[in-house]
Amino acid sequence: MNDERPAATLLKSSNIGIVGVGLIGGSIAAALKKRGFNGRIIGIGRNSVRLQDAQTAGLVDEFTTDLTDAAAKCDLIIFCTPVDRIAYGVITAAAKSSPGTLITDAGSVKGSICRELDGRLPGGVTFIGSHPLAGSEKNGFEHADADLFVGRTCVVTPDIATPPEQLERLTRFWETLGMIVVSMTAEDHDAALARTSHLPHVVAAALAATLSPENDELAATGFADTTRIASGDPELWTAILLANADAVSNSLSEYTQQLDEFRAAIVNRDADVLKNLLEEAKRKRDDLD
Amino acid sequence: MNDERPAATLLKSSNIGIVGVGLIGGSIAAALKKRGFNGRIIGIGRNSVRLQDAQTAGLVDEFTTDLTDAAAKCDLIIFCTPVDRIAYGVITAAAKSSPGTLITDAGSVKGSICRELDGRLPGGVTFIGSHPLAGSEKNGFEHADADLFVGRTCVVTPDIATPPEQLERLTRFWETLGMIVVSMTAEDHDAALARTSHLPHVVAAALAATLSPENDELAATGFADTTRIASGDPELWTAILLANADAVSNSLSEYTQQLDEFRAAIVNRDADVLKNLLEEAKRKRDDLD
Repeated sequence: MNDERPAATLLKSSNIGIVGVGLIGGSIAAALKKRGFNGRIIGIGRNSVRLQDAQTAGLVDEFTTDLTDAAAKCDLIIFCTPVDRIAYGVITAAAKSSPGTLITDAGSVKGSICRELDGRLPGGVTFIGSHPLAGSEKNGFEHADADLFVGRTCVVTPDIATPPEQLERLTRFWETLGMIVVSMTAEDHDAALARTSHLPHVVAAALAATLSPENDELAATGFADTTRIASGDPELWTAILLANADAVSNSLSEYTQQLDEFRAAIVNRDADVLKNLLEEAKRKRDDLD
Repeated sequence: MNDERPAATLLKSSNIGIVGVGLIGGSIAAALKKRGFNGRIIGIGRNSVRLQDAQTAGLVDEFTTDLTDAAAKCDLIIFCTPVDRIAYGVITAAAKSSPGTLITDAGSVKGSICRELDGRLPGGVTFIGSHPLAGSEKNGFEHADADLFVGRTCVVTPDIATPPEQLERLTRFWETLGMIVVSMTAEDHDAALARTSHLPHVVAAALAATLSPENDELAATGFADTTRIASGDPELWTAILLANADAVSNSLSEYTQQLDEFRAAIVNRDADVLKNLLEEAKRKRDDLD
């Protein structure tokens, strides 16, 4: 970013509402503060004790448990709630929002949310889906990190009705936090994330499920790495996997086919085929780094 | 270790042969040097240029490409070669070994090696399988680490004919390198490792194989962690998986059943079942740390 204007001007926002001040919401707040955002950050949630703690930690300037009350004050609102609560929250907030307000989210699934919102927002209020690809298996604003987003990809999912200036504003928002913004349809996002994020979660969880206490001491770092994401929050992941059930199911079928090829090579003691499969896997994995 | 005797005395070895001076062999050499072993370490391999480099790096005191020549000099020999070359090497070395010589290995599979050696060693020469659960997806003695083994588990697989004093000697050897030694049958080892190491490798490789270049930018840290071990050497892993093919195939069947339970819950949109599966997986994974 070579643009030296203060973040408030740059973001065209003076009051930013963050709904759900957990790891992601808290990290967005911390990132805005660190980058000199000089408007107000309003924390919105269901637990006033937690919100008070987030204010004490310096992440939010004020907080409320009343979403409609906050919505009337904010010109930019970011939903960082579990994916199954985003659409309802956006509809509730948008009803009280002023024209020109931009609403976005940070959910891992986009299609179901965008479909649910289609045609249900008042004129002048814009929702554009976002998915910042950053996170951790940790939860809670205590783990908030002002640089969580730096260098990571953020997908935004405008549709044909999205005002270009709001898309530009949203893009600039995530770029200010250090992200590389990629735009695609909600459906393309969900198909891709089914493969790159939701499938790995199921693969890791199913592997973790095979553990038995008597084998724990023989599970070395390879097992630990391969199952790390299985420590993610079961409730959040239930919502994500079900919100993208069709695409996840498809990616599981593709994965099972791959697994069957490996299994056949092993059962048939076919060293050439097995080595080719392992080489191809290694090549793709090495390309990722 | 509170025993302050020099490592040479402690290990009852004055000439230790390391066959295959790669990551593991090199790390054993480095660990012995760091812990004051004052006998000679003889590097044995097929590539004299690489062995010369390992000597220059200070890992081995001398080297040879002639296994039988080296075997005649060593009272302890450790095979750190790929699993499909261990048994043949042990038979070759043992034929020239003096009575009292202890031979072991560092292979990830034990049953096939022990079966192949059964009854084929000269009297007075003992082979006991070892599997130090330490390593990395890196290869080569350049990555050797004198503390690679510290705090890690080493499985040793004696059988009914194993002389107790040689088992004691082998146990002491790995303990000197900082390892926690566990003794079990070769079959129990292979069944456990199929689940904790060989299965995760196949799971990770099959997942890496689903990557396509257009999705790479959307693969976040979760995907990278879950597939990290797929970068392991395809040739080494082909040998490991085929040497333990039956147990790996069984563990793949168990895994596929787990995966099917997740898939069914997703396809049926059964939030309760899916959440239970994810909770159970998380509990087992969290217990690992």
